[in-house]
Amino acid sequence: MSTEVPPRGRAPVPRRPARLTSQLLAARAAYVLRGNDLGVMTSAAPRLYPHMWSWDAAFVAVGLARLSVPRAITELDTLLGAQWGNGMIPHIVFSPEATGYFPGPERWGCHLGVAGAPPFPATSGICQPPVHAVAAQRIVEAARRQGRTDRHAAGEFLDRAWRPLVAWHRWLAERRDPDGTGRVVLHHGWESGMDNSPRWDGPYSRVVVGPDLPPYRRRDTDAVGDPSVRPSDREYDRYLWLIEEMRRVGYDDAAMHAAMSFAVEDVLVSALLAVSCDVLADLGEERGQPAADVTDLRGWSARFRRGVAESVDPGTGLARDRDVRTGEWLATATVAGFAPLLCGGLGRAEEARLLALFESDAWCGHPGLVAAVPPSTSPAVDGFRAREYWRGPQWPVVAWLFHWSFARRGWAERAAVLREEGLRLVGAGDFAEYYEPFTGEPLGSMQQSWTAAAVLDWLC
Amino acid sequence: MSTEVPPRGRAPVPRRPARLTSQLLAARAAYVLRGNDLGVMTSAAPRLYPHMWSWDAAFVAVGLARLSVPRAITELDTLLGAQWGNGMIPHIVFSPEATGYFPGPERWGCHLGVAGAPPFPATSGICQPPVHAVAAQRIVEAARRQGRTDRHAAGEFLDRAWRPLVAWHRWLAERRDPDGTGRVVLHHGWESGMDNSPRWDGPYSRVVVGPDLPPYRRRDTDAVGDPSVRPSDREYDRYLWLIEEMRRVGYDDAAMHAAMSFAVEDVLVSALLAVSCDVLADLGEERGQPAADVTDLRGWSARFRRGVAESVDPGTGLARDRDVRTGEWLATATVAGFAPLLCGGLGRAEEARLLALFESDAWCGHPGLVAAVPPSTSPAVDGFRAREYWRGPQWPVVAWLFHWSFARRGWAERAAVLREEGLRLVGAGDFAEYYEPFTGEPLGSMQQSWTAAAVLDWLC
Amino acid sequence: MSTEVPPRGRAPVPRRPARLTSQLLAARAAYVLRGNDLGVMTSAAPRLYPHMWSWDAAFVAVGLARLSVPRAITELDTLLGAQWGNGMIPHIVFSPEATGYFPGPERWGCHLGVAGAPPFPATSGICQPPVHAVAAQRIVEAARRQGRTDRHAAGEFLDRAWRPLVAWHRWLAERRDPDGTGRVVLHHGWESGMDNSPRWDGPYSRVVVGPDLPPYRRRDTDAVGDPSVRPSDREYDRYLWLIEEMRRVGYDDAAMHAAMSFAVEDVLVSALLAVSCDVLADLGEERGQPAADVTDLRGWSARFRRGVAESVDPGTGLARDRDVRTGEWLATATVAGFAPLLCGGLGRAEEARLLALFESDAWCGHPGLVAAVPPSTSPAVDGFRAREYWRGPQWPVVAWLFHWSFARRGWAERAAVLREEGLRLVGAGDFAEYYEPFTGEPLGSMQQSWTAAAVLDWLC
Amino acid sequence: MSTEVPPRGRAPVPRRPARLTSQLLAARAAYVLRGNDLGVMTSAAPRLYPHMWSWDAAFVAVGLARLSVPRAITELDTLLGAQWGNGMIPHIVFSPEATGYFPGPERWGCHLGVAGAPPFPATSGICQPPVHAVAAQRIVEAARRQGRTDRHAAGEFLDRAWRPLVAWHRWLAERRDPDGTGRVVLHHGWESGMDNSPRWDGPYSRVVVGPDLPPYRRRDTDAVGDPSVRPSDREYDRYLWLIEEMRRVGYDDAAMHAAMSFAVEDVLVSALLAVSCDVLADLGEERGQPAADVTDLRGWSARFRRGVAESVDPGTGLARDRDVRTGEWLATATVAGFAPLLCGGLGRAEEARLLALFESDAWCGHPGLVAAVPPSTSPAVDGFRAREYWRGPQWPVVAWLFHWSFARRGWAERAAVLREEGLRLVGAGDFAEYYEPFTGEPLGSMQQSWTAAAVLDWLC
Repeated sequence: MSTEVPPRGRAPVPRRPARLTSQLLAARAAYVLRGNDLGVMTSAAPRLYPHMWSWDAAFVAVGLARLSVPRAITELDTLLGAQWGNGMIPHIVFSPEATGYFPGPERWGCHLGVAGAPPFPATSGICQPPVHAVAAQRIVEAARRQGRTDRHAAGEFLDRAWRPLVAWHRWLAERRDPDGTGRVVLHHGWESGMDNSPRWDGPYSRVVVGPDLPPYRRRDTDAVGDPSVRPSDREYDRYLWLIEEMRRVGYDDAAMHAAMSFAVEDVLVSALLAVSCDVLADLGEERGQPAADVTDLRGWSARFRRGVAESVDPGTGLARDRDVRTGEWLATATVAGFAPLLCGGLGRAEEARLLALFESDAWCGHPGLVAAVPPSTSPAVDGFRAREYWRGPQWPVVAWLFHWSFARRGWAERAAVLREEGLRLVGAGDFAEYYEPFTGEPLGSMQQSWTAAAVLDWLC
Repeated sequence: MSTEVPPRGRAPVPRRPARLTSQLLAARAAYVLRGNDLGVMTSAAPRLYPHMWSWDAAFVAVGLARLSVPRAITELDTLLGAQWGNGMIPHIVFSPEATGYFPGPERWGCHLGVAGAPPFPATSGICQPPVHAVAAQRIVEAARRQGRTDRHAAGEFLDRAWRPLVAWHRWLAERRDPDGTGRVVLHHGWESGMDNSPRWDGPYSRVVVGPDLPPYRRRDTDAVGDPSVRPSDREYDRYLWLIEEMRRVGYDDAAMHAAMSFAVEDVLVSALLAVSCDVLADLGEERGQPAADVTDLRGWSARFRRGVAESVDPGTGLARDRDVRTGEWLATATVAGFAPLLCGGLGRAEEARLLALFESDAWCGHPGLVAAVPPSTSPAVDGFRAREYWRGPQWPVVAWLFHWSFARRGWAERAAVLREEGLRLVGAGDFAEYYEPFTGEPLGSMQQSWTAAAVLDWLC
Repeated sequence: MSTEVPPRGRAPVPRRPARLTSQLLAARAAYVLRGNDLGVMTSAAPRLYPHMWSWDAAFVAVGLARLSVPRAITELDTLLGAQWGNGMIPHIVFSPEATGYFPGPERWGCHLGVAGAPPFPATSGICQPPVHAVAAQRIVEAARRQGRTDRHAAGEFLDRAWRPLVAWHRWLAERRDPDGTGRVVLHHGWESGMDNSPRWDGPYSRVVVGPDLPPYRRRDTDAVGDPSVRPSDREYDRYLWLIEEMRRVGYDDAAMHAAMSFAVEDVLVSALLAVSCDVLADLGEERGQPAADVTDLRGWSARFRRGVAESVDPGTGLARDRDVRTGEWLATATVAGFAPLLCGGLGRAEEARLLALFESDAWCGHPGLVAAVPPSTSPAVDGFRAREYWRGPQWPVVAWLFHWSFARRGWAERAAVLREEGLRLVGAGDFAEYYEPFTGEPLGSMQQSWTAAAVLDWLC
Repeated sequence: MSTEVPPRGRAPVPRRPARLTSQLLAARAAYVLRGNDLGVMTSAAPRLYPHMWSWDAAFVAVGLARLSVPRAITELDTLLGAQWGNGMIPHIVFSPEATGYFPGPERWGCHLGVAGAPPFPATSGICQPPVHAVAAQRIVEAARRQGRTDRHAAGEFLDRAWRPLVAWHRWLAERRDPDGTGRVVLHHGWESGMDNSPRWDGPYSRVVVGPDLPPYRRRDTDAVGDPSVRPSDREYDRYLWLIEEMRRVGYDDAAMHAAMSFAVEDVLVSALLAVSCDVLADLGEERGQPAADVTDLRGWSARFRRGVAESVDPGTGLARDRDVRTGEWLATATVAGFAPLLCGGLGRAEEARLLALFESDAWCGHPGLVAAVPPSTSPAVDGFRAREYWRGPQWPVVAWLFHWSFARRGWAERAAVLREEGLRLVGAGDFAEYYEPFTGEPLGSMQQSWTAAAVLDWLC
């Protein structure tokens, strides 16, 4: 043995898992997506998440659109079929066939007589980020490349989805921003989609769990081997207490606005609302939908774009959430800080600065990253945890969102780089929910539908 | 309008459907295969063929091997689980969940006490071409590229499948060639897999349907719009009469050999048996299976290779089937005539001549073909029908079989060309069972599992 | 022979040439580009165009940037090295090693003492469309993906090219639009890059060739077999007469503006100037170039964007050129009419209408097209000629330009479709200058550098 | 900063260079190959190797065949134009335009009146491995996929190259194996193509450099920065002394056989001769060349196949070279030991054992390798040097040779794996001559023609 090779007895560095060819990666993604298909909805992942989640469903529809326009439409039809009377799209639609998820329909209690909530299918009582117009747009675009049948189906879908989608955006704009700040207020961290991001550490710390929190048993740690990547029990108590608060006011928008112990303005949701309103308005104009609706959408888009821009921290250049109860800005360096890149609205110099930060060593350009896509939290700050849920890992679907937004803003080269790096992240074909940034280790549930969907949109 | 463009009022030539990117084609193939998944078996196609077919299952396993080695193994485990006591692998394993296929379990009557037939799952009483060792080999090869778990699973599968597979080959060699001619005898055209090929027109014409044929209603024409691409009712009577004959002798091998009114030596099945014996012997040697089995396999391989070579028509160079009842050679110019290219055994000059014919204007090189893969019947002969089942159309799975064989024989470039042309045939993503050679129109059932499987093996 | 196949004696439809794999197509494109490399310049094509053309060079640099950033930089350095003192980038830089092109240096006479023209290398005395900032941007973007050396080289290039590029844009804005209409005035059809487009039929018809036109012999018809795809001799006389007019006033900008018998406002050049000014301003801001230059560029961008928008025909929605000498708008339906899509500036509804026209049956959506990219002239109008230079055929480089612009404007899906269709057009690997739209026949010179460059940018 | 990220101040592990897309890799390979094109020959590499090398030229032709069949033919025509009268194809054909390579034409002295050596172009006086028939076959295969013109050109090439190629193989079989051992005798390590492989350490150690060795100055270390990857001066003396010995006997075959102080039977060259004879015989049969030639070729193939098989070390299973002067077998564990896998001829069990060794931890399966292709020397032995010329690094062209051979032998999956791993090795686009196996660092000259050629054959 030459001295140039690792000495015997020392384990060689394990070779990184081989990267699949793009054909095989695409095939496996489609295999995952169809494998998670429950008929008219796609479970978010095979084991951990057996139901339909609101923004997962939108991303799933983006991926399905490449495989089958009618099936992608069905996904959104199912979701919209569970819309509440006030316009809210609930964050979970429960599959009647799957049980055992906690908190399930009983804990939410929405289908048991809550005003405006559908009795069937059962749903949760909160929302998730509004990316559904994006999915509708991708369906229309995919259909345009297919034959006439698909184009016709997409057009009809848009016609019947128009009112629900406008109602959904209106609910966010009017009920969740009654004061017109241009920032959507959330009443649960789960509504952000980034469940236990450090963004919410402050607000959550001010939630006092009542002594009468009904008892419960967690299920989310059953399927994931390593509990350190999941929230703590104490955190979980607070999550459930907030549900309790909502339930006690009958999920009434105004009552929640007044009384919830958790109320934050979410800058990422606000940016997504701004861009979704524009996307939907574009679709509506093309399809000849009512001008009044389009005008409303353009107005909301402008309002929330401005609200996002106004949240920018002059020091760091990052957009900030705000705790409504204390009035303070929340300046943790998370990926949500790049919200203005999604919706635009900054001045040229401010935007250039934010883009430079996005690509800097503190973010995508960090030299230790396996793939140059944004981590959920900056690796340059103390709160960063490489393996914890939304406290460090990289989410392929977040990379996809920035990719799509960058392409939409005309930054074709930056979009291409995010696509390439996103594919590097998921190249071994696990379709994990999220990834450790420095090793590329897949974390959370595997065969996650939205990861497969992002891969399909990138590759096909 | 310039005079150089088609004048108004004349319909422009429809553009050929766009060819999908290889990523999208692979993704759609995986989507089809998982969509046809019934749990432990894959239906041959969504509507027309809701059960498991023997050689379809083998091809399906080839495709699944790229997506999930364990699932591919399950496919073969399910099939082998329905093996008869005498070693025969039945041509259909009926899904208990699907009904309505004709002829179904009742018509065959095998599960109702036929000696050696499994009571559950219900099966048919005839066989199909032996391509299962090929599937086993592809699974082993796919596993080798994956992690240790897959390699281990493939090894264990081979260990448990060894005896069933040897028994299957032994049954073909001993019960279906008791006289040692080196050619497998079939008692139904369906056993050839090429159901109503013109190869069997002569032998079928000599089948006299008894007056006591029990009545029946066809179902195969329900799902296919155009009856002209399916066999006639008169042909169908004969198909069922042969089942009746078998049933009356209790599916006894010897009795059938003596008495069936249909008995043909099939040169393609014989070639596939020769090559499969070699493939299985190679796998057995690698895995340390009993030397006696390996010796048997090598012996059968040699015998059937010789039998195929001896069938060659000195005039045309094509291999021929033989009607056992009349003793005459059957010289129709079908793709089965190229059987020696699959298994070898010809002299150098004979083989060169056969290859030249394969690539000539009468076959793959016909100038009118959309894709240069072999039609089921030569377009240069009278019996050719461009749209009729096995009388002209191109089968992607047949192209795959030649592709795989050519690669195995060391003809890498020829294999590459067949792959490329095969992909040209299926490039629009319909995954049809077969295609019209001059227009590329997809025919038969769409979303056929084995077509998707062939595409996956080619692309991934 | 069955009746279903073409009867003997009737020639089968020739199979369309096989489409190369994307790897092979990319490899052949690189092979072409390096094969046309003359050292520090790339000839536009091997035989017909042995010199460097201004906008060809820019496109060539776009392609080279994927292969070698330093070589791409050299291409632009060479071109900028031939810039005139007034800022004009000449439309031809003559290779000292190639002779025999007509009209050559002697005919132009620029290197023989024309004020501001470089004595070496010899150049022509007119310009071509300003797409050089686009090339600079693509070089910077390509370098960003490479190592530090390339990034450094690109930065240094931008520093030294800054003043020349600003001067070039300033010359167009000030000398070629002295009245501030927002539309660039051309004094020769060749300046448009679309030499004998029907756009110029009217203005050319008003050019009276003087009796003292020096005699000449054409060369452009030597290399192209079919003279019908080239301009007529009478047209050629006018082309040369305009050179004569310029030469007689010493190529003086003001004198030409006053006296040339050909003076048209070119809406496509104007749009390209608008977008190039923006692109250059962006690059300058990133690199910290003088703010005054950036301000000038932004101002010109706004002015020409407005000029383009103001040219739109209210009836058709297409932008129009204008004959300065007669004051009339020129409304031929050529691809230049889509200029506003490149630079923006229309109202939302106007733009949607123009996009719909772009995709309609009269343009990219014409059912007879082999590939859905814009023909040079609408196949729905009388002037359309499927094989004549700029009177009908499709130019891959024009498709690339719209692709790039659409991506820049955030229309990612439309850009993707143009890329896909552009690749369909050139998929057989001829790299022709242009293509017959209904048959896909390659026309003009083969192995054209800019076609290869467009392919490389699309594929790599 | 979390504790989970590398502490500040410690350099992060440098990310491995990004792997290019297959399109870009193919494009860069073509760019390299055309960039090294000198007109009718391709230099082996831009700086270190400015002339034509015999086996490089063959590999180059393999790559060129994908880009331009006529140009590939020219490459072989040029090489064959320098063939000696006795049939030897010289290992270098000197480009008249390049100077400065040592040892150059003067040192060899062949063009100055050596019997049978061409006066122009100047050549060296030794040979290299016979892979030219492989190149001819690849040209014929590439032409078959192109239009009629290429097929015709390839046919004509084969007709005129037939006699030279047969003569070349005859010279090797008769002059270099006059005793009929079935192993080709070499008189210089350079003839093996693996210049200072440890295979030749023993034989070289027995070469006594005469006191009258003419003085010289090396050039090979000029272009390569690190001298440790090149042979030592003492080794170089011996290389030149052998030339001196040859020169003194006028390069006479018989005299060299009798008197050279270096005479080894090369088992890899012998295997390549065996397989090349078969390939050429196949081509000849297809083309109708004289049967007597074909018979000779088949005879030589059988003889050398047997000679290779007889060299196998019963202990290790590897084939061995032999020092003719001492009669001893040379058992260093180099890649040449796998020669029987190239030409066949082993028993089934022996071959399975050798394949297992090829894939074992001592070779391609070594866990530290960046890419699973054979190192030039086993990393499990003492003589292994990870960076030294032919003493450890991986040569893409060697991987290609095994890939091609495996495909020819029908081992499609193994061939596919070698292709995939070979592409992993060269994926960053340097096209290095060879690579450090544990880091993937590119070594030797960059932009090596044969590396680019192997990549093109793999990708296109």
